[in-house]
Parts: sequence; structure tokens; C-alpha cells
Amino acid sequence: MRVMAVLMLLVFAAAPAMAAEDLMDRAKQVFEPIPTTPPKDKIISPQSVELGKMLYFDPRLSSSWLVSCNTCHNLGTAGVDLQETSVGHGWKRGPRNAPTVLNSVYNIAQFWDGRASDLKEQAKGPVQAAVEMNNTPDRVVKTLKSMPEYVKRFGEVFPDQKDPVTFENMARVIADYEVTLLTPNAPIDKFIKGDDNALSKAEKEGLRLFMDKGCATCHSGINIGGGMYQPFGVVEKPGSDILPRDDKGRFAVTETPSDEYVFKVPSLRNVALTPPYFHSGKVWSLRQAVGVMGTAQLGVDLTDSEASKIVTFLHALTGDQPDVDYPILPPITDSTPKPELAVTQQGGGH
Amino acid sequence: MRVMAVLMLLVFAAAPAMAAEDLMDRAKQVFEPIPTTPPKDKIISPQSVELGKMLYFDPRLSSSWLVSCNTCHNLGTAGVDLQETSVGHGWKRGPRNAPTVLNSVYNIAQFWDGRASDLKEQAKGPVQAAVEMNNTPDRVVKTLKSMPEYVKRFGEVFPDQKDPVTFENMARVIADYEVTLLTPNAPIDKFIKGDDNALSKAEKEGLRLFMDKGCATCHSGINIGGGMYQPFGVVEKPGSDILPRDDKGRFAVTETPSDEYVFKVPSLRNVALTPPYFHSGKVWSLRQAVGVMGTAQLGVDLTDSEASKIVTFLHALTGDQPDVDYPILPPITDSTPKPELAVTQQGGGH
Repeated sequence: MRVMAVLMLLVFAAAPAMAAEDLMDRAKQVFEPIPTTPPKDKIISPQSVELGKMLYFDPRLSSSWLVSCNTCHNLGTAGVDLQETSVGHGWKRGPRNAPTVLNSVYNIAQFWDGRASDLKEQAKGPVQAAVEMNNTPDRVVKTLKSMPEYVKRFGEVFPDQKDPVTFENMARVIADYEVTLLTPNAPIDKFIKGDDNALSKAEKEGLRLFMDKGCATCHSGINIGGGMYQPFGVVEKPGSDILPRDDKGRFAVTETPSDEYVFKVPSLRNVALTPPYFHSGKVWSLRQAVGVMGTAQLGVDLTDSEASKIVTFLHALTGDQPDVDYPILPPITDSTPKPELAVTQQGGGH
Repeated sequence: MRVMAVLMLLVFAAAPAMAAEDLMDRAKQVFEPIPTTPPKDKIISPQSVELGKMLYFDPRLSSSWLVSCNTCHNLGTAGVDLQETSVGHGWKRGPRNAPTVLNSVYNIAQFWDGRASDLKEQAKGPVQAAVEMNNTPDRVVKTLKSMPEYVKRFGEVFPDQKDPVTFENMARVIADYEVTLLTPNAPIDKFIKGDDNALSKAEKEGLRLFMDKGCATCHSGINIGGGMYQPFGVVEKPGSDILPRDDKGRFAVTETPSDEYVFKVPSLRNVALTPPYFHSGKVWSLRQAVGVMGTAQLGVDLTDSEASKIVTFLHALTGDQPDVDYPILPPITDSTPKPELAVTQQGGGH
């Protein structure tokens, strides 16, 4: 009897700790932490990253000299522009909400429809899109070649190339810089690295719900999303106010009927910093976005309390924002093509 | 005879040194170096500078969330936008070329027509101008108050105020940040501090011409300009392609007939980095700008050789560009007024 009592006491005393370990173990199987240093195998050199940073912030990659990568992917606001859909050349709106550049190296592909296989491919799009930077590869190369400091830096990054200032190499070094834009040390990362105190009780409740309700089925892995494609409205299509019927997502890329309204599952890292939500950017409230996901993807009506707890957890996905030393850009020369504000290109968008 | 010969040798040997000293002495009387640290009496505290930096880069001071101070006064391109005249809200052009924010604390007044007495007064203009940030003081205050981090920071900068988040205080802290945007250590600064090797032979020839021809009559002092008003075309008005007749400059401020086509003499610091030139922004070539100044202001036709030498000297006015740690901005909340792209305000411009 005494032995039993002691055993039972031990069991009861151990229960909360076991529950915590259980949650941590489950989370460890579902998520992966963002590393504190970028993947070196994806970067040419520190010089390519520095050159890429200059180009990322250089509005002269656009035909107007008014739009840079940082315009829509502002590193001061978690790598997004906080717009419903992005606004670029000619004050025109693009078709989709700008996805964050942060941690984007860990996405399965780039753009909402995954039409770019990697960051380098992605970087070529907005430069040429009529509603973004409205430029041409030829004009970009002419612009870069007109500035001796850029020519020198491209030569240093690509020492074996005869003519290193190319549109391809521009995209490559921008991608190299973007690879470094990571946000480690979010509470969720600390938690799955073993720090039980990294999440509050409320955040843990939210995490448990996030996994129990099925959110983590798609929003998993290192980017808590970003790893697969799914139909928006797998259980029930949201209204056309949230899912406009003229944007069929990945169908435009694959022309496969089953890809209608299929989009890349977005990363939820730093999601509390990146409203408005969805590819349409129609939902400003994270609470509402969670509700929409419940009905559209999971077929569940989350209670107010459940949705609130999940939102509390989502705030624990905010990591350290990148420390950026703002680049000083090379001066133009007489041979630099002058800015042009007129719209001349076609197509494009996130 | 031997004494004479020795004396003559001494005289000849000393001549170049005397000429150099003469040039340096003359330059010391005309120019003043940019200090390596900002004037502390013009700044409330390091906290006001940091808050000002955040606001300087925050596009949410504009109604669209697309335009920040840094849009037209880009610190990566010497505090200007490299546009003929600035482009802001609605992709609309403003009436004048954006003057650089760098070293602007040392100007006699702000804007091309001097209508703002100081940087704080200046900062209120573009926020409200229809063709720039298109916002209202009320909306700005509501926006700032919706973000707890801004409320906290304003409270820290203005601890004695009950309601520190005001449009006035916004302008004050932006001005505090701008006070720190100095470009010291230009070759000209080192030269007038006594380093004879800071300027090359060609730059010294340019400096001598700059003073002999009369450029330094107006382009003098700490900002090598920025210290007085002058008619554009004091000797001969340039054509309306360069001096559009519908912009009468300071006349609009003072309504005094003698102020027709009068503008603030711009600072020439970093002038090699800030094309295009003049309030109209119609001249992209520094060489051409120097020629226009010769005929319009001094009544002299500079030879090619003279103008080139002056241009060479003007490149020696480029100082160390500010080192900027790009600010991470506070997240919005549910009470933050949403971005609006429509044009609703009237007037404004540099």
C-alpha cells in the first residue's frame, strides 16, 4: 500500500512535466529551428552578399529609379510592404500580396504559385514586371555597367568570367543576400531547442491547438509552412472577397485542373508582423485569418477561445529581425540610362 | 653676390610653398569644415535621434504607406532621389528637385525658397503635401498612437509632456535625426584643416578658379552654399528649359518683386553625387551646370579647361556618407488607420 501510494505520488508529480515534454517532443517532430547563421553552401562569398545587398536597395534597378526590392520587401517591416497587393511602377497595384523575403530560402519554391524554383529565378521577375520595377535585362545591365564601382564588385564576385555584369549574375547576388535574411531565436525555436520556458502557458496552449486542430499538417517544417502546395478552400472555398475567382494560383503554372486555386502554403514565421493576409491580402486581422483557415482548410469552426490561443501562439513565431547596415550606392555617370516614369513593360506580380 | 644668390634660391624654393599656403589661407577664410560630430545643442537626446530615424524611414507616415522621408532623401544616394523633380503620392511629380538632407542643418533655411526656417518646420511639409506623402497631422498622430512602441518612445523623449505623441514632436525628432546626417572628411575639409596633400594638383587648380572666378562669393561657408538667397540669372537668365518661368522661387514666400526667381544658394557638398542639378533638375551634367552658373550668375564664359578644373574640384567636396543602421519599425495594430492610395490632399513640394 505504501509503495503504491509512493508510486502514485510519483506518477502525479511527473504528469505536468511529462505533458510538457510530450508537447516539446511533438513540436520537435513537426518544426525545425531557423539556424543562427545562413547556409554557407548557398552563398558564393561575403562579397556576393554585400553586392546583393546594394542591389536589393538600389532603386536604379527599376526603370523609374523609384522602386527597389526593398520597396515591396521592406526589411524594416518584416520583409513585406503591408499592402493588400503590392504597388509599383506607375502607382499600379500588382495582383497579389507580397510574401516576406525573410527566411524565404527555406521555401519549396518562390512566388505564391511557386513559378520560380529558387531565389535567383524569383529575383528576375519583379525587375521586369510592368507593375513592379518595369525594367528590361538589357537596360539593367547597361545601368550597372555605367557605374565603375558595380563593375569592380561584379568582377570580384565572379573572377573567372570575362563579362561578369549580367542579368543572371545580378539575380544570383541578390539571391545570395536574401539567403542571409533569417530571423532566428523566435520563442518557438528556443522551445524546440529544449527551453521549456521559451513559451508561456498561453503560447503552449496555442501550440497544442495548432497541432491538434491540424494547422501543423501544412504549416510545418523549418518555415512553419512554405514546404508544399495546397488548394485554398480544400474543405470549403472562402467567398470571392477573400479568394478572388480570377486568380487560379498554380493552375497558371502547371495548367493542371487539380491545381486550380492551389497556392504555396505560406510560412507563418513572423506572421504577426506581416498583415494583411492571404495571396489576396484581403484579411487584416490575424484572428480572422485563423478563422478562415479553420473553415476553409480544416472544416472546423474554431471557438473564439481556440482562435485566440492560436493567435497567441503565432506571435511566438516572431524571430530576431535582420540587422542591416544600409548600403551607400555608387554614383551614376554620364552613361547611366536616365530614369523613365512611363509604363512600357507587360505582366508580372508576386 | 653670393648672398644675393642664396636669397634668390630661398625665394624660388619657397614660392610654391607660399602659393600653397596662400591658397590654403584663402580657402580657410571662405570655407569651414563639417564637424565630425553633430551639434549637440540641436539634439534632445540619443533617444530622440533614434526615434527620428525610425520615423524618417517609416512609410506609414504617408497615407499610402508607400512614401517615407527616405524615398526622396535616400541616404544610400547622398540624401536625394536622383529625379528631375520628386515623385510621390499617386506617382505624381512635385514642382522641384529634392535638395539633399545631408548637412542641411547648416543651411540658412529649408526648401529651395527658404519657406521653412529650420528642419523641424521643413519636416511638416512633405508629410502633408499631396504630391509627396499626402497625409494629415491628425491621421499621422492616430497612426503613431496605434503602435505601442512609438507611444513608449515618444514618452521617453518627452517625459514632461502629458500627451507626447504630436505632429510637432514627430517633426522635432525627425529634425533631430537629420541634424546627425553630416558628411565630414571631404578632401576640402582636410585641406582647410591644414593637410596640403588632401587636394591633388588638379583639385587645387579647380579650387583656385572656384575662388578667382567668383563661385565662392555665394558658395561659401560650412556648406559651400546654403547660406544666402540669390536670383537665378543675376547677370543673364537661363532659358526657360532650365529656369521655368512659372516658378518664381522666393517671390511666393515674400511677395516682394525683387524676390522673383530668387532661390536659396544650394550647398555644393557631395554635389558630384546629387544630379540632376538646379531647382528644376533639368541639368544632369555637372560640367554643364558649372557652365550655366558661369554665364547666368557671373557673366563669364568659362573655357572648357576652366570648367573641367572646377568640376574636378567639386568632386573633392564629397565627404564620408552617413553610416545608417536600418531601423526595424513597430508592428501595426488593429487601430492603425489602413493605407489609402487615393489622392486627397492639396499642394506642397520642395
